[in-house]
Amino acid sequence: MSGRQNTVTALLSGPDQRGLVAKMSGWIFDHGGNIIHADQHRDMEAEVFFQRIEWTPSGDQSDLEAEISEFRSFASGLDMEVECKLTTHRSRVAVFVSKYDHCFHELFLGQKSGELPCEIVCVISNHKDLEEATEGYGVPFFHIPVSKDTKAVAEQTQLAVLAEHDIELVVMARYMQILSPTFLQQFAKPVINIHHSFLPAFAGGKPYQQAHERGVKLIGATAHYATAILDDGPIIQQDVDRVSHRHTVNDLVVRGRMLERRVLADAVRWHLENRVLVYGRKTVVFD
Amino acid sequence: MSGRQNTVTALLSGPDQRGLVAKMSGWIFDHGGNIIHADQHRDMEAEVFFQRIEWTPSGDQSDLEAEISEFRSFASGLDMEVECKLTTHRSRVAVFVSKYDHCFHELFLGQKSGELPCEIVCVISNHKDLEEATEGYGVPFFHIPVSKDTKAVAEQTQLAVLAEHDIELVVMARYMQILSPTFLQQFAKPVINIHHSFLPAFAGGKPYQQAHERGVKLIGATAHYATAILDDGPIIQQDVDRVSHRHTVNDLVVRGRMLERRVLADAVRWHLENRVLVYGRKTVVFD
Amino acid sequence: MSGRQNTVTALLSGPDQRGLVAKMSGWIFDHGGNIIHADQHRDMEAEVFFQRIEWTPSGDQSDLEAEISEFRSFASGLDMEVECKLTTHRSRVAVFVSKYDHCFHELFLGQKSGELPCEIVCVISNHKDLEEATEGYGVPFFHIPVSKDTKAVAEQTQLAVLAEHDIELVVMARYMQILSPTFLQQFAKPVINIHHSFLPAFAGGKPYQQAHERGVKLIGATAHYATAILDDGPIIQQDVDRVSHRHTVNDLVVRGRMLERRVLADAVRWHLENRVLVYGRKTVVFD
Amino acid sequence: MSGRQNTVTALLSGPDQRGLVAKMSGWIFDHGGNIIHADQHRDMEAEVFFQRIEWTPSGDQSDLEAEISEFRSFASGLDMEVECKLTTHRSRVAVFVSKYDHCFHELFLGQKSGELPCEIVCVISNHKDLEEATEGYGVPFFHIPVSKDTKAVAEQTQLAVLAEHDIELVVMARYMQILSPTFLQQFAKPVINIHHSFLPAFAGGKPYQQAHERGVKLIGATAHYATAILDDGPIIQQDVDRVSHRHTVNDLVVRGRMLERRVLADAVRWHLENRVLVYGRKTVVFD
Repeated sequence: MSGRQNTVTALLSGPDQRGLVAKMSGWIFDHGGNIIHADQHRDMEAEVFFQRIEWTPSGDQSDLEAEISEFRSFASGLDMEVECKLTTHRSRVAVFVSKYDHCFHELFLGQKSGELPCEIVCVISNHKDLEEATEGYGVPFFHIPVSKDTKAVAEQTQLAVLAEHDIELVVMARYMQILSPTFLQQFAKPVINIHHSFLPAFAGGKPYQQAHERGVKLIGATAHYATAILDDGPIIQQDVDRVSHRHTVNDLVVRGRMLERRVLADAVRWHLENRVLVYGRKTVVFD
Repeated sequence: MSGRQNTVTALLSGPDQRGLVAKMSGWIFDHGGNIIHADQHRDMEAEVFFQRIEWTPSGDQSDLEAEISEFRSFASGLDMEVECKLTTHRSRVAVFVSKYDHCFHELFLGQKSGELPCEIVCVISNHKDLEEATEGYGVPFFHIPVSKDTKAVAEQTQLAVLAEHDIELVVMARYMQILSPTFLQQFAKPVINIHHSFLPAFAGGKPYQQAHERGVKLIGATAHYATAILDDGPIIQQDVDRVSHRHTVNDLVVRGRMLERRVLADAVRWHLENRVLVYGRKTVVFD
Repeated sequence: MSGRQNTVTALLSGPDQRGLVAKMSGWIFDHGGNIIHADQHRDMEAEVFFQRIEWTPSGDQSDLEAEISEFRSFASGLDMEVECKLTTHRSRVAVFVSKYDHCFHELFLGQKSGELPCEIVCVISNHKDLEEATEGYGVPFFHIPVSKDTKAVAEQTQLAVLAEHDIELVVMARYMQILSPTFLQQFAKPVINIHHSFLPAFAGGKPYQQAHERGVKLIGATAHYATAILDDGPIIQQDVDRVSHRHTVNDLVVRGRMLERRVLADAVRWHLENRVLVYGRKTVVFD
Repeated sequence: MSGRQNTVTALLSGPDQRGLVAKMSGWIFDHGGNIIHADQHRDMEAEVFFQRIEWTPSGDQSDLEAEISEFRSFASGLDMEVECKLTTHRSRVAVFVSKYDHCFHELFLGQKSGELPCEIVCVISNHKDLEEATEGYGVPFFHIPVSKDTKAVAEQTQLAVLAEHDIELVVMARYMQILSPTFLQQFAKPVINIHHSFLPAFAGGKPYQQAHERGVKLIGATAHYATAILDDGPIIQQDVDRVSHRHTVNDLVVRGRMLERRVLADAVRWHLENRVLVYGRKTVVFD
């Protein structure tokens, strides 16, 4: 939603204090920047302040890193946590898959069309099914099988691949394995998962089967950050589609695929555009 | 969705057999009727057949009851359960309320505008708040307080009112009490409830509070038939509304009201138009 | 979406200049206020800046009018147009109706439940159908018949009623007359209209008939500010509902009513909460 | 929505007569078939009857073509037009494209995953941009440039390709040329187009630009059969997405792509599943 010149986005959060908006915008003004968008939110109960600001830095574009670094110090001095990003930056993404390919293709096509401002650097899978398709996109494919006994070792292999490729974001594109708390802790960077259900309803396996048995009139999909507790991570995006008694379990699966694709694509795009602040079990999405 | 002449609707269900569609339509044809709408569904796994037929009976409208009765015998002979209704029939409805009035007004306005083809015959409440509003609509109000100790007695009083007024349908319009299995069994007629959540997520109390804490991006409402198991009855209609971090719990409550009104109104209208077949824990809605 | 203490909302618009966010928030900070929400937008092509700020003024609540007046001067000095409002203010609203009552009741129920923070001060109609219902709500009803020949005179009578009652907003709740450019110019305050169609499709009369003939799969409703050009005023809110070949024109009308009610209620609520900035043929809605 | 055994679907339409449902289902019953789904509709004003029936033919699957042929004669004898299809049949589809690839990829991925039960036999384009991608899918690509002067000749070349490949359906996947009435008449088979707007609003070019200038709150997409009159063909599917002042024209284009993809995929799937009856300027979609 920005123009095409290079801009900086900052996501800020911290204890609420009087005058934060004035201080942040004052700093940018004093440094010759021009605010393009600014959106903020206060959680009244928790007394936390959240802000996303996007600005064009002053004339001299040669030293943006220094300016960002100075802004970071300024924000830290106000007890704010801050995440800065240049809009020209392309995050390095690893995609985890198993056998389903609908979310996999959605991510590659979104990346190619420019809707997902990232580089997909590698694909990791516990199956070989998508090896050829991955290579067709010109991207390396790592087949790392996972069984109950080998899971801990497999995860170390995955972590090594991620480290080697400087991965900044993992997207689980219907990867049918749970990433262990150890993995998440060691990776220490965001992991986005798509759950093929309207969480918290039907958490866990076979949600379409459960939904069909319950006779629901809407099915849903939820994209969330992965955390140590299964399917309980902060929700980024959700959507639903209307169904009826005429739909078989298989029909729900087919319609669910479209839902999963677009919910995951929204969540990944917002993350890449530095729009998502995590906050306890919740997110603030400045969309 | 029918023209305004008198027509008959039949809802049929029973074990699937070859030729049921032909037999049903054949009977109507042979008796001089003309089918306006017919919709059917087969549950492949359970091998159950469902059908809704609407037809204009033959020229002689004087003896419709006899024709319906004959059709019922015919359907029973084929092992089908059948629910017949003249579209000119106005079901006798009792509305149960507590203090919230948004669903209450929705039902009265829908009845007056003709969208809900029924008569609202009485209002029963455990509080006095809506007495005046009820009388403003020209309908008797029964104040039947309910406490833990008096619940069994209160329910007998409610049942007496329902019996006295020949009630065919109870609508719980945000009635904040649970009707006991005993009540449901003795009433033995349909009871529609509105749950202010997207079931099965957030079943039970304070769903908006729960939804807010979980940071959901959609809130929902569910209308279902009341059964002995709380919030587990067959779902008739569901809908959602999009929310964000900007919404307080109170905002969710306010937006939820509009959602509850329209979801309940849809469910009641479909029921009154003889469009809803209950089937295990599910419904088939011929909408 | 604010807490219940008294806050000020300001809607600002004007030529974009570097540092506007800093200046506005700086003024509030310097005067001891605390910003609760602030949202801004820049139209890149037109180089116009828009902002909605909500803040709790400093401790002394006794002289809020003076503070607002001082803020207005400050904003004007920066070439900004500004619209300020105390959140405790209840705008004085006149409702224009003809015979349809669904939007009429929606407004009264919304006002009574607190969702529409206003006072409905009078109802004006070219028909007598809603006289009794209006008086039931304890509000005066003005029957001002309109014919082709008497329209100019009737409008002067309407304007006199509006002036006498200090009306700040007119809501056309399916009022089946067009307000003349002269009326709009002399009233010189906002008028919100509900159009029972998804504008710009099917502008003008009988949109449901047109939609049915065209076989559309969605019907819509649009709430907009009335302007001298029919159905061309700035759009505040739109929504749709899914329909099929099974729906008659009458079914579209029935479903359309629910759509019209909720679209009009949203638009009026946003207006009353000082969330809508008009801007050429468009609106900026800070929802 | 059917099981995986071979079934027959028939789409029927013709002048309404008493007893049609009985006659159709009677024929199937008498020939040993079992009706899986049957849905019918009557247009009350035009007195036209529409029906979709799906049935499993009798035990002997060896002579299905003969049975279908006999059913066709029977239906014709009742003045019904009939379109029959075996669910195992894979329609031969040609995709027309220009430079945009989002709908193009959607169709190929849908075909590969089985959601679109067809064979994509060839791709025809007035540009070379998608040649490599087409060949990557293993499908022949025909580059047929079109200019104002060469259009008539180019269309003859296109028609020759379609004839040579026995094409049964053309899908215009954002093909940026209008097919002439002559082309449509000579091809004489269905052509589905995706219009990147909520028809009839913003018919013609640059609808997102128009929508942005008008400040609409919803954007839409419409899939319809192509007819001699531009953007006026019978509508198969429509959907919308919510937008705000924060979205640039480019944002609308990006969001519109997802909308176009899913609206086109729905329309093509319903067509392939023999669910769409054209009827004057409208469709009856038995979904």
